[in-house]
Amino acid sequence: MSGGVDSTTLLYRLKHEGHEVLVMSFYYGQKHGRKELGASQATCKALDVFQRIVNLDSLQGLISNSALTGNIPVPEGRYDAEVMKLTVVPGRNLMMASIALAYAENIGAEGIAMGMHKGDHHIYPDCRPSFVAALRVVAQHSTGGRVEVLTPYLRFSKAEIVKDGIRLKVDYSKTWSCYVGGEVPCEKCGTCVERAEAFAANGIEDPLLQQRR
Amino acid sequence: MSGGVDSTTLLYRLKHEGHEVLVMSFYYGQKHGRKELGASQATCKALDVFQRIVNLDSLQGLISNSALTGNIPVPEGRYDAEVMKLTVVPGRNLMMASIALAYAENIGAEGIAMGMHKGDHHIYPDCRPSFVAALRVVAQHSTGGRVEVLTPYLRFSKAEIVKDGIRLKVDYSKTWSCYVGGEVPCEKCGTCVERAEAFAANGIEDPLLQQRR
Repeated sequence: MSGGVDSTTLLYRLKHEGHEVLVMSFYYGQKHGRKELGASQATCKALDVFQRIVNLDSLQGLISNSALTGNIPVPEGRYDAEVMKLTVVPGRNLMMASIALAYAENIGAEGIAMGMHKGDHHIYPDCRPSFVAALRVVAQHSTGGRVEVLTPYLRFSKAEIVKDGIRLKVDYSKTWSCYVGGEVPCEKCGTCVERAEAFAANGIEDPLLQQRR
Repeated sequence: MSGGVDSTTLLYRLKHEGHEVLVMSFYYGQKHGRKELGASQATCKALDVFQRIVNLDSLQGLISNSALTGNIPVPEGRYDAEVMKLTVVPGRNLMMASIALAYAENIGAEGIAMGMHKGDHHIYPDCRPSFVAALRVVAQHSTGGRVEVLTPYLRFSKAEIVKDGIRLKVDYSKTWSCYVGGEVPCEKCGTCVERAEAFAANGIEDPLLQQRR
């Protein structure tokens, strides 16, 4: 759980469906890490869910070729622009999934859930349906069939996720998306722009921005 | 690279085949970690290969349900005995592979190589050909086809690996296998027994034990 729109809505959804949920969040040197983790902690506290934060600090030198983790500035603009490829953190989802699978197997959890969605597919190879399908197979072999991979939002757009979140009464004022990681959202980076469009498509103002006025 | 027979022979083989090789080794709370890592360091130094040691200390609480990492004693006996299942570290190979894949993608390496072999298949789900096949597919999707997964010893027995190592002039006195992690090999745990059989099958004495006489 990053603490953004997708993973936060996913948590509400899993709780709503009656699952017993434990949250995993990762720090891997992302610039917006403090804001992201703070947001996820606030939601977990509000929903009374146990959160396990995994510090992957020791991997920082390994996964630094990205605007999210390295010295490259966070690009501005729409998610589908070529420049947004700078925000790809190579191998991130496979690493996080494999750690979550190992933990799930250890504690006897029946599945891991991830918040990939349609808006991510163009830019991020490790958010695509083909990646998720392959992850399901490798998870089955690695865990001897004991742990499933759930991605209920894989075919949803971000606007459709927000629509689902409105139904689930998600408190979006506790979420954080901006990649820059300043005190307030920059409203210019790809994830800020995408977030604004998703709330606009649902005809509501973003509660996080509303809060500031 | 653990520093045992399989990964050490694999390193010699890759070097022999003319690959430019960088070694990754992992500390994940294994009891024999100090001995393993020391062995792998000695070999890397002898072969003048750069070694990157990844500390997964922060995952220790996640992957503790094993005789290799937790409070369960290391079992004695043959590898095919039911009790050896206690040495399974759930999800370990998928985690290590996914970190290696991310690093490979970042530095532009064309592949990762792993030392799985036939003797591991019965006990460890994440050493089986079906797991490796699934790993290849997920690696292809995660990296956009940029990084391959090599497992040249997948269909070899440990005796066949040692045979290959004799051809490659591997210095087995620098390797370490024992799971107990004492000053000298215990000669009773599954990996000590398997190692002894592999050298016996090739009609030579284990150089590590020979050294001590």
